[in-house]
Amino acid sequence: MNSKLKIIPLGGAGEIGKNMTLVEYDGAILVIDAGLMFPESDMLGVDIVIPDITYLLEHRDQVRGIVITHGHEDHIGALPHILPRLNVPIYATTLTRGLIEVKLKSHKLLKDTTLHTIQTRDTIQLDPFTIETFHVSHSVPDGIGLAIHTPVGTIVHSGDFKFDPSPVDGQLTDFAKLAEVGGRGVLALLSDSTNADSPGHTPSETTISESFARVFAQAASRIIIATFASNISRIQQIIDVATQFNRQVVIIGKSMQDNVKMATELGYLRVPNGTLIRADQMHQFEMNRIVIVCTGGQGEPTSALVRMANRDHKQVTLAAGDSVILSATPIPGNEEMINRTLNNLFRAGAMVYYDDLMHVHVSGHASQEEQKLMLNLVRPKYFIPLHGEYRHLVLHARVAQSIGIPADNTFVIENGAVVEFDAEGNARVAHASVPASDVLVDGIGIGDVGTTVLRERHHLSADGFLVALVTRDAHTGEIVFGPEIITHGFVYAEISEELITGAKAAIVETLQKGGRGTAVSTTLKEVLSKYLYHHTHRRPMVIPVVTEL
Amino acid sequence: MNSKLKIIPLGGAGEIGKNMTLVEYDGAILVIDAGLMFPESDMLGVDIVIPDITYLLEHRDQVRGIVITHGHEDHIGALPHILPRLNVPIYATTLTRGLIEVKLKSHKLLKDTTLHTIQTRDTIQLDPFTIETFHVSHSVPDGIGLAIHTPVGTIVHSGDFKFDPSPVDGQLTDFAKLAEVGGRGVLALLSDSTNADSPGHTPSETTISESFARVFAQAASRIIIATFASNISRIQQIIDVATQFNRQVVIIGKSMQDNVKMATELGYLRVPNGTLIRADQMHQFEMNRIVIVCTGGQGEPTSALVRMANRDHKQVTLAAGDSVILSATPIPGNEEMINRTLNNLFRAGAMVYYDDLMHVHVSGHASQEEQKLMLNLVRPKYFIPLHGEYRHLVLHARVAQSIGIPADNTFVIENGAVVEFDAEGNARVAHASVPASDVLVDGIGIGDVGTTVLRERHHLSADGFLVALVTRDAHTGEIVFGPEIITHGFVYAEISEELITGAKAAIVETLQKGGRGTAVSTTLKEVLSKYLYHHTHRRPMVIPVVTEL
Repeated sequence: MNSKLKIIPLGGAGEIGKNMTLVEYDGAILVIDAGLMFPESDMLGVDIVIPDITYLLEHRDQVRGIVITHGHEDHIGALPHILPRLNVPIYATTLTRGLIEVKLKSHKLLKDTTLHTIQTRDTIQLDPFTIETFHVSHSVPDGIGLAIHTPVGTIVHSGDFKFDPSPVDGQLTDFAKLAEVGGRGVLALLSDSTNADSPGHTPSETTISESFARVFAQAASRIIIATFASNISRIQQIIDVATQFNRQVVIIGKSMQDNVKMATELGYLRVPNGTLIRADQMHQFEMNRIVIVCTGGQGEPTSALVRMANRDHKQVTLAAGDSVILSATPIPGNEEMINRTLNNLFRAGAMVYYDDLMHVHVSGHASQEEQKLMLNLVRPKYFIPLHGEYRHLVLHARVAQSIGIPADNTFVIENGAVVEFDAEGNARVAHASVPASDVLVDGIGIGDVGTTVLRERHHLSADGFLVALVTRDAHTGEIVFGPEIITHGFVYAEISEELITGAKAAIVETLQKGGRGTAVSTTLKEVLSKYLYHHTHRRPMVIPVVTEL
Repeated sequence: MNSKLKIIPLGGAGEIGKNMTLVEYDGAILVIDAGLMFPESDMLGVDIVIPDITYLLEHRDQVRGIVITHGHEDHIGALPHILPRLNVPIYATTLTRGLIEVKLKSHKLLKDTTLHTIQTRDTIQLDPFTIETFHVSHSVPDGIGLAIHTPVGTIVHSGDFKFDPSPVDGQLTDFAKLAEVGGRGVLALLSDSTNADSPGHTPSETTISESFARVFAQAASRIIIATFASNISRIQQIIDVATQFNRQVVIIGKSMQDNVKMATELGYLRVPNGTLIRADQMHQFEMNRIVIVCTGGQGEPTSALVRMANRDHKQVTLAAGDSVILSATPIPGNEEMINRTLNNLFRAGAMVYYDDLMHVHVSGHASQEEQKLMLNLVRPKYFIPLHGEYRHLVLHARVAQSIGIPADNTFVIENGAVVEFDAEGNARVAHASVPASDVLVDGIGIGDVGTTVLRERHHLSADGFLVALVTRDAHTGEIVFGPEIITHGFVYAEISEELITGAKAAIVETLQKGGRGTAVSTTLKEVLSKYLYHHTHRRPMVIPVVTEL
């Protein structure tokens, strides 16, 4: 039976179905989103993590296209790494397309990519799928969810959503369309689980504006606000409050500048004439007439905010009296860098407003009561929580069960698992899954850093290495060069001379006991490791190199 | 003038005055606490961070002793590393002494240490200091604050405190003593800043018991609760609720077992007969009669909870129906490990209760309103916020200013800074500070891992290393061995054969261009680094070794 409908979540770095989801029917594959994740802290040296597209490459002729739900990195960020290997058409709403174009341009991929603009309440025909789009409110405008009609039934994908009663762009999540689709009958709902451990409702984006206004009303000097480069709604709020308080707005950082330019041109940012100024125009205004918007809300070492905190930003030197607002939630793993940034901002004399102190950020994702509303509107037969870590999926499944979805009809699955629907619309998790490992991007290498390299990096990061070099006469076995020791990341060489001298003596002693070839290298490694552990309680990577000439 | 009174905070890993504080007068130094910090995430391979005691070692004859305020790691954990170099008497209350003895015993240091038991509302004479102790409530019993009377005036050190209205052990923070000391006049207050960014009051420890009871009432199988090994109050709460619900309690983990044994013997834990059982007795009871208490609340890789989550714990195999309570707040930097543990616990089928879902942990530290109460009771002339990151100190100073302490009389200082009081009781920050770097303990090395080694570990952790070996004939310059390449943590060697072959060719080509000695090594390093970056966009540590024989 090839005419089974399949749902396959993909993603990375502990998140399930966040960065990509596949819908497959009768030899046709629809891809939803192509995002990146930031590496987990033990993915040493890795730049980003992208979904595993092995399955798509194996079935490349069947891929109908990629529909993007919204323009955040975790939904579009993998495109530059995937498109060169899988050049398929992309479907996106106007602003989302704009954000994708900014990205593809910087990777010199724009020309070779086919992009289609879609609208909300649009219908896209990608046989055998008929896709209806509906607007969802989130922390970036122009986000959509999808109702994917298939011969077996309708699959609803929520996208990243919240039911914001007063969104910054005035566009509500499309209750009416959801209710209508729900009324026609939905086979399965795939829904955003990010905040499944938050009871109640997520506050509206516009509640932030009140906090901004409070800071603006008090601030005697500059105001600096850090947020994501793609958080167009937050940038709109800043521009609105700045206009109200008669301050000029400076955007610092190329990615944010590009996004602001694009969003303004497309009509998604409303900027009163003369509000935006360049950094080199700041000196023309009093300090209390300036608002600086920049990235750095995650404590990223090269971001503008962190440079300012460390007092090495070219254009902005922080001073007592400055106010800094950190309008972001820490991505788990970034807390320490963020705290360090906060401390340094305070050290520089700024008053800093962050989440513990003031309501300066809200999540863009639905809390439990909104998740229930989505479920109640769509009334699916089956429920597949996606977009979250495993615990969020479990908790989201419990939310679904609390409003009456039978536990047997909820599927908590891992990346690569396949939920199969037969012709009668009965679902089960298929026995076989598709490849779904974390694909690590390091430099220009995609996937060549795997467990072996990571294990070595871990070892090296904790205790460094020690290479011992000896050259012996091939005939006599006498040492003609060495022992020489090269060690880094292990001990501070200058104060450990004695240790190194001892290590050399141990090498000589071991060689004198005889033995040749691999055997002597193995023995040397053991002897050295034991010697070094005894004296330091550390276990550097020990590499003896015995050459015979 | 030698008769100045000095206050000097010490500590580590971004916390100020948390792990140690010095009070000095007229050639006598009083040490308060000797705690450890866990390394920050960029302190690669480091086990713990301890305060810099250079200043104490330089003035070892002047050190009168170490007064410990309570038995948590960040106040006693550095003792095993400090006492061998600075063997001075220790003063501690009964339970705190018990926790210290457990620790010193495991380091075989107990016999050589002089310990004095002190009481709350005790007076210790350590000339020229007269120290009055007063009880403070915290998340471990028997905590104290200090009123240190000096010829210049009285210094009050709050210890770690909260004003818990219903502490687990029934012992309130000693309002009366604080008010009395305040009434006699206080020169300076040094106070706990941990929660200076939390408005309001910290909830009472006993509010947790209600959450525990809710979980116990529902749980159909085993209950597992993770907390700190030294959190004696939380362990008492668990024992109380377990007794109420007729469950046996199993303590897993040596440090927690040792602490429970000691605290029970000293009368600080009240355990009904027959409540505690050993792990090997668990099989004698139904699953729903068991509570397991263990460590792992920070996601520590070797802890019992993490082993259970990863399904490799010898005594406990998690099963569907088990309930797990994580009764701990993440230490910044541990969030990712904790989240991973939570996910794996859910994967193992357990229902997990953590802070976002249920009120299962409270902070042991005062929030802003309690900090104000401390300030109002003590009514100091000067205020020195301690025990927090820099931002907490700034915010605590603002709290003090909000209740009327002049900004000029509040000192926000870094570790090693010296606040000096002259004979008239006028304070200023001295020009010179004392050594106060983070002392990193790695294996048995104390302080031998510094910036150089850490920088190398960072480099190695991100991109690994590549050692290139060539031996040349000393006379002809001809290559007699190599080039050989040793590389780890850089690329997966098997799929990068081409890269390595190219690197060897680049070496041969470079050597053919002539040159000898250091110059040729420098050139080789440049050529190789450039070659490798071009092909990978990575920058491994490149080490050419050219030998001439």
